[in-house]
Amino acid sequence: MLTFIGLGLYDEKDISIKGLEAIKSADSVFLEGYTSRLMGAGVKEMEEYYGKKIHVLGRDDVENNPENILDAALKGNAVFLTGGDPMVSTTHSDIRIRAKERNIPTKIIHGASIQSAVCGLSGLQNYRFGKSCSIPYPEKNWFPTTPLETIVNNIAQDLHTLVFLDIKPDRYMTVGEGVSLIEQMAEKRGVKPPEIYVGMARAGSDNPIVIAGDSEKLKSAYFKEPLHIIAVPATLHMMEKEYLKNFAFL
Amino acid sequence: MLTFIGLGLYDEKDISIKGLEAIKSADSVFLEGYTSRLMGAGVKEMEEYYGKKIHVLGRDDVENNPENILDAALKGNAVFLTGGDPMVSTTHSDIRIRAKERNIPTKIIHGASIQSAVCGLSGLQNYRFGKSCSIPYPEKNWFPTTPLETIVNNIAQDLHTLVFLDIKPDRYMTVGEGVSLIEQMAEKRGVKPPEIYVGMARAGSDNPIVIAGDSEKLKSAYFKEPLHIIAVPATLHMMEKEYLKNFAFL
Repeated sequence: MLTFIGLGLYDEKDISIKGLEAIKSADSVFLEGYTSRLMGAGVKEMEEYYGKKIHVLGRDDVENNPENILDAALKGNAVFLTGGDPMVSTTHSDIRIRAKERNIPTKIIHGASIQSAVCGLSGLQNYRFGKSCSIPYPEKNWFPTTPLETIVNNIAQDLHTLVFLDIKPDRYMTVGEGVSLIEQMAEKRGVKPPEIYVGMARAGSDNPIVIAGDSEKLKSAYFKEPLHIIAVPATLHMMEKEYLKNFAFL
Repeated sequence: MLTFIGLGLYDEKDISIKGLEAIKSADSVFLEGYTSRLMGAGVKEMEEYYGKKIHVLGRDDVENNPENILDAALKGNAVFLTGGDPMVSTTHSDIRIRAKERNIPTKIIHGASIQSAVCGLSGLQNYRFGKSCSIPYPEKNWFPTTPLETIVNNIAQDLHTLVFLDIKPDRYMTVGEGVSLIEQMAEKRGVKPPEIYVGMARAGSDNPIVIAGDSEKLKSAYFKEPLHIIAVPATLHMMEKEYLKNFAFL
């Protein structure tokens, strides 16, 4: 049996009771540690809290050599932990399909994800979000402006945009960096940049920071530790504006 | 102090450890019981499991008379429970704003929500979803076709659509009813209805049902107990198609 378990947003206590019970009764515990990670808990803290040894998986273990995971799931109860909600990454889908091909039963235990958490943090209504986008760190001779296209396209339809910021092994994109890159994309394309941004940091922790305002304000604000994320709102409805004024310094 | 806690998707064990700890240390526990509800646990089961008396709130308690909640939060630690992730409804935003006006500190503890759960159940990728929509039960002389507009608009942009189905005090819209209403909307507007649907039931439970196919297949499939939800896919990427073949009988 292979159970995919979402760890939720921030630390070792964001997992559901159901998820914790599944870990406690597992024969082997794998942690997917490269598409997402819990910022509020290290592997050691998780091992202590869950009372289990955790096998941390790198990209290669998951994408090219998932044999260890599948073997463990054939022999006993294996759990596959991921930050947020599982299956957001296609590599998780791929492992579930491979398990099915070997007749290994699979199951998903869901966790809180940033996608709905931003609604609570920002007060921006769920049903008003369009397609989301991700901003990668630009590289030499590579500076894609497609994220801006998504934002502009959403605003034209009066829809908000959730903007994921790049996560690299050694660094995390900040709200300020993200806003600055969006402005550069707008300049490159010769379109007007967004007027308002909502920057959010450490969703799910005891001290999330949420600040709404124009690019100057957002670039000079200090959001502290990662992970950071940005929402670019379309027209704000009355209640959304009121919420941002009360909880995001608009 | 007023803490908004998301209960997650299905039963009393879908809450996070953090959420459970907050309930255990609360002086009063309120449950918002009309915009969402846990299908896998009644109030009695929740009270037993959480070890607390639960005050169930109707629409009037939340929207017009939230004084009891605010008074309890002024005097001690009050928690406000909702299915899924909190703040998805504007009435929750409103209560948080009212609390702020009285200088009551507030906090959010997130829970798993259907929005990301559908990605795991269907394998449809998160970043490929456009705006979502809701189908209400039609009434005499009232049959809105705006949900279809959202679906058609998303498909034109090659985006999937998450379609919420109506929840009434005495009934829950089924996948079959939803698909049939979408087809009627298409007929009324003179446009082609979607070719494929993914119907899902009881996300977060031990026995979710996920079936993908055309309208005839979906209308004759039996999804059993609520809650039901539909995703209308745009073009399927290879891995999405593979996933639906393996886990949704495509």
